[in-house]
Amino acid sequence: MNAGSASVRACRVRLARVIEPSDVAGLLLLHALGPEVLWRSISELEAPSPALASVYRKAAQEALPGARTPDLARRFAAWRARLPVPDPETDARHAEQIGAWTVIPEDANWPAQLADLGIQQPIVLWGRGEREALHRLERSVAVVGSRNASAYGSAVTRMLTGELCDAGWCVVSGGAYGIDAVAHQTALETGAEHAPTVAVLACGVDRFYPVANAELLSRICQRGAVLSEVPLGCAPTRYRFLQRNRIIAALTRATVVTEAAWRSGALNTARHAAGLSREVAAVPGDVLVGGSAGCHRLVREDHAVLVSTGGEVLELLGSLGNAAAEEVLGQRAGRDRRPEDRLDPVQLRVFDALPLHTDADPSQLCRVSGLGPGEVLTSLAQLRELGLAADSLLGWRRVGSPHGRTGTGRSGGS
Amino acid sequence: MNAGSASVRACRVRLARVIEPSDVAGLLLLHALGPEVLWRSISELEAPSPALASVYRKAAQEALPGARTPDLARRFAAWRARLPVPDPETDARHAEQIGAWTVIPEDANWPAQLADLGIQQPIVLWGRGEREALHRLERSVAVVGSRNASAYGSAVTRMLTGELCDAGWCVVSGGAYGIDAVAHQTALETGAEHAPTVAVLACGVDRFYPVANAELLSRICQRGAVLSEVPLGCAPTRYRFLQRNRIIAALTRATVVTEAAWRSGALNTARHAAGLSREVAAVPGDVLVGGSAGCHRLVREDHAVLVSTGGEVLELLGSLGNAAAEEVLGQRAGRDRRPEDRLDPVQLRVFDALPLHTDADPSQLCRVSGLGPGEVLTSLAQLRELGLAADSLLGWRRVGSPHGRTGTGRSGGS
Repeated sequence: MNAGSASVRACRVRLARVIEPSDVAGLLLLHALGPEVLWRSISELEAPSPALASVYRKAAQEALPGARTPDLARRFAAWRARLPVPDPETDARHAEQIGAWTVIPEDANWPAQLADLGIQQPIVLWGRGEREALHRLERSVAVVGSRNASAYGSAVTRMLTGELCDAGWCVVSGGAYGIDAVAHQTALETGAEHAPTVAVLACGVDRFYPVANAELLSRICQRGAVLSEVPLGCAPTRYRFLQRNRIIAALTRATVVTEAAWRSGALNTARHAAGLSREVAAVPGDVLVGGSAGCHRLVREDHAVLVSTGGEVLELLGSLGNAAAEEVLGQRAGRDRRPEDRLDPVQLRVFDALPLHTDADPSQLCRVSGLGPGEVLTSLAQLRELGLAADSLLGWRRVGSPHGRTGTGRSGGS
Repeated sequence: MNAGSASVRACRVRLARVIEPSDVAGLLLLHALGPEVLWRSISELEAPSPALASVYRKAAQEALPGARTPDLARRFAAWRARLPVPDPETDARHAEQIGAWTVIPEDANWPAQLADLGIQQPIVLWGRGEREALHRLERSVAVVGSRNASAYGSAVTRMLTGELCDAGWCVVSGGAYGIDAVAHQTALETGAEHAPTVAVLACGVDRFYPVANAELLSRICQRGAVLSEVPLGCAPTRYRFLQRNRIIAALTRATVVTEAAWRSGALNTARHAAGLSREVAAVPGDVLVGGSAGCHRLVREDHAVLVSTGGEVLELLGSLGNAAAEEVLGQRAGRDRRPEDRLDPVQLRVFDALPLHTDADPSQLCRVSGLGPGEVLTSLAQLRELGLAADSLLGWRRVGSPHGRTGTGRSGGS
């Protein structure tokens, strides 16, 4: 399973301790030199050698032509400032004690979709729980949202996550309070026996943060997995949260924001997803309270798709036809089929002209409907066949429709 | 004011009694022959003459090339079936008694924007109340929605209509129960002294339908106006409701649906507006109850703009800059400015690395932030200037931020 050589793995683990996520300079060199050479350079050189500098210049010009690239000397000093790093064996022992493992791009089970991050692909991922969860991520959706979730946001998240799980999707989130926690919990309750959910953390997988979610995160480890690009022992920082979001976006086929306030970090995850050409969906809510303002903002400003059900998310994922999804929505929205729905415009106008409690002769129906005798008589015959009109010696009246005078029918006015 | 000759007016009034709204055949002939000739033909001929038939064919080919046009003989029979019509003088007297008036395309105060309806422009409009309201319609917005409005829908409609009125817009709606009624009421309460609102009915303006809104409609007449293309004495039909919606859409610069269930007639108004290249906006709501399903459908399927405030509608109307509108939204959404918002990414990482209750020396800050000594020292100086960091003999600590450990800050995680 793990094609990555022990030495490559050890060097990536060490590099992850000195190079912060998405550190362009470090990642350009990693790309150009490989983990072993880069690690030797950082650990052995006081400052970047002319050779290293020219490799960096060349790599930068290729990867980011014209872009202003970070000053290598400064970055190099930043990496050196973090030396010494724990010896890999010690690190590995610690990992083993807590049942943690690493997966690197050289491994067969490295999630291929992370390659979409290009240069910003993680150096290494630490994991806890089921290694096999990495495969399930090929069919995964991110469900994220505010930490201070409302009752509405929680209910929506449960409903939507449940529908995604029923359809066999693995639900990925950030293991935070609120919406993230509800998504993970729902997936554990209703999802597949095997890896129904994966949490991506902004701190080392040995620290279950936030502490209040420790019990939830350990349950996720038992059936799913917890992942992080941040080394063991490291605390979450704002910067790491924002970087973590790019991993959630890259691992999944779509990101759904079920509830987010104006400045929720969930918007950052959604924008990472959009940047990676992943589907982005947002659930609307009450506009009088700010709770869903971030979701509305995503729809208005970032062209996120407005979704009201898991069915609409599945439609977005292409795993459910539009018709089917609309049916789902239709049903949920209380959409009801009526006999009149089958009528053509002319039939409908005659049907509307028919009295309920008295009888009308065709000439009256002509005046009321504004249709000619031919149209009226043809339609009356058709309506009778459909069981919507009845005639007697006294004339014609409407039957079958429970909807009173049509003018007052719900579908009538605006 | 009324350039239309008495005879033209009389003929249009009569034609409106035999030709239903949007009757293509009748309107093509009206366009080709003018009101007087068409009325004479319908009232005097038993059936379409060869001359009339050829005029019709020619007009149809020009107006709807290739389209299947209605059978003239049938339509003609339908118009004739409605003869005789009340004599215009009697009609006019009745109108005068109830303070109703007519306006025709030949009049100077005919709402020019109705020309966008092309062939489907109304034959004549009956009005009650302020004739001057016709001018106000140049700066009008339609606010429409479900008849069975929820408390949420009503509150949203009040809020949004109030903001539109404050900005000096005239609010147009359909005079129906629910959202329409709330929109009219709010406009009467908060709108301009002169013609704050106009109701467009699907029945004659002498019948205040629905009856329960009679008091509201008469108040609208006192300060605004009630309009209809349907002759005096005529009842509303489903067909007339749907046709009425095209007038609401054409009269206004934008149509806002504040609450609409899956099959609300308000969707029909919105689609007319879109067809006329008017702006269309919809207010989202709870997805767990069906009340806003129609609004969500408009955003999903018809590219309606999602709006949460009147400010966003004004933005759509171009009468308020984006910045201003976003500020409005921002404030409503509880968006708050924080000192950190002014920091660049490097400064922010140093700020995040600063302890709150202890002191750290620059080398610690380098390790935590992953930045180099140069970057850290520069940023610390800048943070001190901004009043966000303080140094002592013991080292550096954070000041000024009320937001605790940033990792747990609301803006941190997803």
